[in-house]
Amino acid sequence: MIDRLMEKIERTAAPIVIGLDPAPGVVPETLFDESAKRLGKTIEAGAAALLKFNREIIDAIRDIVPAVKPNIAFYERYGLEGIRAYLKTIEYAAACGMMVIGDVKRGDIGSTAAAYSGHIEPASLYDRTFAVWNEDAVTLNPYLGADSIEPFLDAARQRDKGLFILVKTSNKGSADIQDLPIAASAGAGESCSVYEYVAGLVSEWGKGEGLMGASGYSKVGAVVGATHPEVGAKLRHIMPRTFFLVPGYGAQGAGAKDVKHFFDSRGKGAIVNSSRGVIGAWKEAGKGAGYIAESARAAALRMKEELGSVLQV
Amino acid sequence: MIDRLMEKIERTAAPIVIGLDPAPGVVPETLFDESAKRLGKTIEAGAAALLKFNREIIDAIRDIVPAVKPNIAFYERYGLEGIRAYLKTIEYAAACGMMVIGDVKRGDIGSTAAAYSGHIEPASLYDRTFAVWNEDAVTLNPYLGADSIEPFLDAARQRDKGLFILVKTSNKGSADIQDLPIAASAGAGESCSVYEYVAGLVSEWGKGEGLMGASGYSKVGAVVGATHPEVGAKLRHIMPRTFFLVPGYGAQGAGAKDVKHFFDSRGKGAIVNSSRGVIGAWKEAGKGAGYIAESARAAALRMKEELGSVLQV
Repeated sequence: MIDRLMEKIERTAAPIVIGLDPAPGVVPETLFDESAKRLGKTIEAGAAALLKFNREIIDAIRDIVPAVKPNIAFYERYGLEGIRAYLKTIEYAAACGMMVIGDVKRGDIGSTAAAYSGHIEPASLYDRTFAVWNEDAVTLNPYLGADSIEPFLDAARQRDKGLFILVKTSNKGSADIQDLPIAASAGAGESCSVYEYVAGLVSEWGKGEGLMGASGYSKVGAVVGATHPEVGAKLRHIMPRTFFLVPGYGAQGAGAKDVKHFFDSRGKGAIVNSSRGVIGAWKEAGKGAGYIAESARAAALRMKEELGSVLQV
Repeated sequence: MIDRLMEKIERTAAPIVIGLDPAPGVVPETLFDESAKRLGKTIEAGAAALLKFNREIIDAIRDIVPAVKPNIAFYERYGLEGIRAYLKTIEYAAACGMMVIGDVKRGDIGSTAAAYSGHIEPASLYDRTFAVWNEDAVTLNPYLGADSIEPFLDAARQRDKGLFILVKTSNKGSADIQDLPIAASAGAGESCSVYEYVAGLVSEWGKGEGLMGASGYSKVGAVVGATHPEVGAKLRHIMPRTFFLVPGYGAQGAGAKDVKHFFDSRGKGAIVNSSRGVIGAWKEAGKGAGYIAESARAAALRMKEELGSVLQV
C-alpha cells in the first residue's frame, strides 16, 4: 500500500490527499434539495446528497491527486444510510484509481481491535471471507496501546494495506494530553512529550517484519497535524522511515511553508490533507453548486503548486 | 441518564452491565447455521445470527440487570448488515426497558466530534431531526483532548444522555501510554501518570453546568478497567463524583474483590461490565446453544451475588 501510494504521488507530483468530510455547510443546499425531490426529506436523501457531492469532487480531482480521505464521522451521523454512502464513496474512488484512507480513528483492546481490523481485511464468516470496508489504509488512535494496534499490523503485513496512527493531531485540544511532558524516568532517554513518546512507538511498530515497503517507508504511518510546524522536523527525526499523513492544511490554518519539514530531505515521506479548502472551495469563491468541481480542481492545483514551490530540493 | 441508571441499579440491586460483544466463538455455530438456512451463507445471515443471539441474552437478563453494552466493533466488522444488527440490538434492549451504553470509543477533532455526537443526539437534516443511533450513553477516547469531548458534553447537557471517557482501560497494552509518568511540571500538582491526569480532566469536565445528576454523580463517567484493582481507590479519590464503567470482570480475570474500591463508601458509583463471562457462559458450562439464556442468567445472578457480598456496607 505504501509503495503504491508513493508511486501515485510520484506520478501526480502531488503529495496531496483530499478529505471527503461533508460537514454541514460544505455540501450545497441545492444537492440536498435535489435528492429530497426524489426521496423526500429523508435521511436517505441526505446520504444521497453526500455521495453525489463526493462523486463530483472525485471526478474533478482524480487525475491530479492520488488519494481521498473520507472521515467516517460525517457519514456515521446519518446512520446506516450514511455508512452506505461512505462505502459507495470508497467504491467509487477505488474505481477511479484513487487510494482511500479511511479516517476512522478506531482503537480498542486486542480482541475488539481484531474486529475493527475488518476495515482493512476481509471478515471470516462461514467458510468464506467478506471484504466489507475496503479502505486502503485507516487511521488509528493509540491510547489503548500496542495490543490495540497489533491486529492492524497483522492485516497490513499480510495484505496491501496500511495504517496511520495518531501522534500529534491538528486541533487545539491536541495539547491537553499529547503535549504532556513525560518524566525522564519512563525510559525514553530524556524527557519528552506524550506525542514524542508515541512517535517512538509508531516508529518501532513500523519496523516489524513485512511492514517496510520497498520505497523505504513503512506501512505503519503517523498522523501529524500541519498546524504545529515546529514539530515537523522533530518528529521526522524520531520517525525517519514513517510516512506522515498531515491534516490541517488550508482551512485549519497551515500553509506550504508550515509543512516543509514534515517531508524528508528528498521532499518525500508525507502526504498533506486538505478538506474544506478544496471541497468547500466553491463556497469560498462565492460561487454556487454548479462550480463544485471547477473550484475543487482549481484549489487542488493551487495546493499542488504551493507545496511544489517549497519542496524543490 | 445517570440518575436513570442509578435508579435501575437500585431497583435490580445489580451494578452490572452485560457486554454484548459477539466475538468469534461466543455465538454458537448452530445460530449461524440456522440463519444460513434462511439467508444463505451471507453476511446478512451472519448479522442475523448476532441479533438473534443478543435477543436471547437480553430476554434472559432483562429483569435482573439494568443495562447492556454492545461494542460496535463486533458489528462494524460485518459492515452495513452488522451495523443494522447493532441498531436493532439497541432498539430491542430499549424496548425491554434496559439502558444501552454504546461502546464506540470515538474521538476526533471538534467539528468531526460534533458529527460523532450523532450517537447521542439526533442529526439535523432538512428542517427535521433524525434520531439514528439512540444509545443512552457512549464511550469516548480522550487522546484528542477537550475539543473532542465538548460536542458530547453539549449533547449530554441538553438531553437525557451520558458518556464514559476512557481513563485506564482493562487491557495489558493500557500501560503503554496510559501509565506513562507525567513530569511534575505539568501543573498536576505532583508527578502522576497519564491516566491520573486524564482522570483529573474527566472529573473537571463532569462538573460543568447541567451535567451533574440529582444522584450526586455526573453524566460524564469514566472507563476504569477492573483488571487494575490497585487503581480503584486512587481514581475514586481523583474523581469522587464520576460514575465508573468497569470492564474486565470475569473472562478478563478480575473478580468481585478487585472492583470493591471502584465503588464509593456507600457501595455506589460504578457499574461492572461482564461480557464473555455471561454471554459465553453456555460454552463454559460445556452446554449447547439451547442453554444460552439459562447459562447467561445464572452467570449474571452469580455475578450479582459476588458483587453484593463485597459491597455490603
